Amino acid sequence: MNGAESLIRTSVAAGAEVCFTNPGTTEMHLVAALDAVPDMRPVLGLFEGVCTGAADGYGRMADKPALTLLHLGPGFANGIANLHNARRARSPIVNLIGDHAIWHVDADPPLASDIESLARPVSSWVRVAKSPHDLAQDGAEAIAAASRPPGAVATLIVPSDVAWGEAGAPESTIAPESAPLVDAARIDTAAGVLRSGEPAILLLGAHGLREAGLRAAARIAGRMGCRLFCETFPARMERGAGLAALERLPYFPEQVIELLGSTAHLILAGVTEPVAFFGYPQTPSRLVPESCRAHSLARPEEDVGRALEALADVLGAPEESALVAAPARPTRPTGQLSPTTLGSAIAAVQPEGLIVMDEAATSGLPYFLGAGRCPPHTYMSLTGGAIGQGLPCATGAAIACPDRPVLAFQADGSGMYTLQSLWTQARESLDVTTLICANREYRILRIELSRAGISEPGPQALALTDISNPIIDWVELSWALGVPAKRVESAEVLVEELERALAEPGPHLIEAVL
Amino acid sequence: MNGAESLIRTSVAAGAEVCFTNPGTTEMHLVAALDAVPDMRPVLGLFEGVCTGAADGYGRMADKPALTLLHLGPGFANGIANLHNARRARSPIVNLIGDHAIWHVDADPPLASDIESLARPVSSWVRVAKSPHDLAQDGAEAIAAASRPPGAVATLIVPSDVAWGEAGAPESTIAPESAPLVDAARIDTAAGVLRSGEPAILLLGAHGLREAGLRAAARIAGRMGCRLFCETFPARMERGAGLAALERLPYFPEQVIELLGSTAHLILAGVTEPVAFFGYPQTPSRLVPESCRAHSLARPEEDVGRALEALADVLGAPEESALVAAPARPTRPTGQLSPTTLGSAIAAVQPEGLIVMDEAATSGLPYFLGAGRCPPHTYMSLTGGAIGQGLPCATGAAIACPDRPVLAFQADGSGMYTLQSLWTQARESLDVTTLICANREYRILRIELSRAGISEPGPQALALTDISNPIIDWVELSWALGVPAKRVESAEVLVEELERALAEPGPHLIEAVL
Repeated sequence: MNGAESLIRTSVAAGAEVCFTNPGTTEMHLVAALDAVPDMRPVLGLFEGVCTGAADGYGRMADKPALTLLHLGPGFANGIANLHNARRARSPIVNLIGDHAIWHVDADPPLASDIESLARPVSSWVRVAKSPHDLAQDGAEAIAAASRPPGAVATLIVPSDVAWGEAGAPESTIAPESAPLVDAARIDTAAGVLRSGEPAILLLGAHGLREAGLRAAARIAGRMGCRLFCETFPARMERGAGLAALERLPYFPEQVIELLGSTAHLILAGVTEPVAFFGYPQTPSRLVPESCRAHSLARPEEDVGRALEALADVLGAPEESALVAAPARPTRPTGQLSPTTLGSAIAAVQPEGLIVMDEAATSGLPYFLGAGRCPPHTYMSLTGGAIGQGLPCATGAAIACPDRPVLAFQADGSGMYTLQSLWTQARESLDVTTLICANREYRILRIELSRAGISEPGPQALALTDISNPIIDWVELSWALGVPAKRVESAEVLVEELERALAEPGPHLIEAVL
Repeated sequence: MNGAESLIRTSVAAGAEVCFTNPGTTEMHLVAALDAVPDMRPVLGLFEGVCTGAADGYGRMADKPALTLLHLGPGFANGIANLHNARRARSPIVNLIGDHAIWHVDADPPLASDIESLARPVSSWVRVAKSPHDLAQDGAEAIAAASRPPGAVATLIVPSDVAWGEAGAPESTIAPESAPLVDAARIDTAAGVLRSGEPAILLLGAHGLREAGLRAAARIAGRMGCRLFCETFPARMERGAGLAALERLPYFPEQVIELLGSTAHLILAGVTEPVAFFGYPQTPSRLVPESCRAHSLARPEEDVGRALEALADVLGAPEESALVAAPARPTRPTGQLSPTTLGSAIAAVQPEGLIVMDEAATSGLPYFLGAGRCPPHTYMSLTGGAIGQGLPCATGAAIACPDRPVLAFQADGSGMYTLQSLWTQARESLDVTTLICANREYRILRIELSRAGISEPGPQALALTDISNPIIDWVELSWALGVPAKRVESAEVLVEELERALAEPGPHLIEAVL
């Protein structure tokens, strides 16, 4: 058995099942190993950003790492932006990067570059494999590093001679760690704060947004009357009727400061203290005002769900007091398409169990506000601000959850970053409906220009935020990549097409012209 | 004047005219500065790999840097693969990366990452701007670094508070350096080798492939009878009737070893010693066999053209003895499309002054062999092996040379990496004809599988090198992005469509189904 096969066999033994890849010459022995090990499913992407974004979506939904298999520094570099999002989402991912043979690097061949320097900014764990005999152990450690709660990006660089060299048997896997428990003192502090009767907000993030955490949060809120919020950009949250009804921490810093100015205490469960997404003159980075005291109940890497349960128990909050969302849907919208009618259209028809990947940017907020009482579903968002995450992430989520429909709720400008994802959805017959919000501009930048004091942008600033020249035909793009598509220009037709697309198996795309 | 405006004004004063960009929030003041400084032309790309590849093509043709303006670490990361190619091409490029305000980084906002670590592997010069007052000087030094012969990638990271802060006047520019001259000893050594009467190959690269170098090489070959070769993947070479007729150094290492085994001397002019593109078992990295002696006449960063002229003069080679290609074209091909008929079709109709960007991979070699005696033209190739260079590079070349037609001769698999380039071509009405070689597989990988000893690839290896499921409709993709397109399935129709597209202004795409 060569190193490549020992690595893939070890990965399978550790529970990895999927490999998102666009391989090149230095990966040929790893590709051959995918044939030798039938329990690993390779999924081809036409661009590495598709592969890494899909691994992120897979990791969020499967709670275990997929592999990526990428080609040297440049192939890996194409996947960095979505690994940045994965790092911020704390998604478990193991990147395998094929490198030149160890003895060949010194010749500085054209494709050589400093892969470690590229990998470190997005990886919690980086290793360069040195020997075929150790490659299985390297793989076992990479999977363990990626699986450490709540999840992390691990990158293993595999020189081709390490892949093709003779190796021993696959390694036994490393027992997974569990998330550390929160000590009683922090639970008591939070309980004291809530008992004080002073206004308090409980801010949930990371695994605090899964069912156990939400159930406990609903008990706490029902008992103590605190407000419940989720972080601004959750990697994954369970949502809908029967679950805790959460408000969402706003995006712009002045809104967060105003909100937190209205409370005496902020209890952090699975999040760190809120900071501004961008720095603006005269606005602080850290958004908790002096009048508000922040208390960390559980950090993102700790067992947030059990911390919330323990807090609910300490407070004596019975299950019956849980404050959960009652079922309700908006009525089916009619008339012109807008972010508001778009949001109502989705919320009016979305089936139970839907996975929503929201990269709708400025077109997305009304949907979030309108969907909180829909049938239970999963909501994912753009965690790291690196646009082009939505279509790949939806692709990976569909691979992880073949029995659930997926909606990629997608801004058009961001969607153009990784549109190749549609081809993988067609190839794998994935049940993903992509809804393109075609406002034909980088609207967030129009807003940011004005926030930067550029209230009357000149022709260049306007042109650089305008993508209507030429108009991008998403319907043609989609058909060209194998995904059936329709354009809609009214809310009535959108509702109809969305309902049909979500009900039919396989991928669909709807371009909603705003 | 703020820092941003002082930087853009300094860049214009130093001769920069074009800025390829996809900006974000941290770049808003730099965007506003583009309105304040009308001599800088912004060109929008829908993806950063388009911007950096276009800057590479622009730099190769304009011999001076364009700016790129990119958004933080992830936006820059999307451009790394094509910067890798630019680094290998030694193209002059100045990257401006907007970063968070200096005081904001410590808060670790979602888009923060280690930009320097990402930038170093592809940049010869990296600086983080510290103060608005120094930003103009930083810019002047970045342009000087990028312009140092033969060219380099320089990266200036601009925190947003440095861009928006009050600054002084723009800096005066830094006088450009010229390429160092080669000392007489190396010229004498090369002359001695050629006079020895032993078989010799003169291998040209970098600026040795421009007109002055080629003219001198033709004199040398005419006088001394040595063989002339160009490097395997030239960044830019002038070619055609009336210029030195060069053979091309082969791609696979065993072919290079065989070639060099047939000569006693290898004279290097603008290149370093040939190395294998990839490492294979039982094949050395360095390809000059013991029976051949390598002599460096001029390194790529030296004045290769003048070194060749000096060598021609020392050898007493008169202009009249110059061995140049006589004009000739292949006849117009008929019948089935194949790499051979594709190559003849282009060579049969290409107009004088055409710029050919060849990323046709396995479909491209016959064209190179057939076009050596066509009317004079410029040939560019994939220098760093990071696929997805062709369409962006052709885009930038067309911006640099608005009076010359450009042909993007493009493999389909590689083309899918940066297809967003077509939109920029449509937006800017660029005279680029894209010829897609649609063999619907990663054919080079089929070859590499076999070279790796995987002579009977299994179903996964076959599937991962096959992009025909689903078939990508390049004609629809092209129309969707604003570029008129046709599909051709015979050589006759290809010739006709190619002639029409090359003659008509504006962008066109032809999908040639192989």
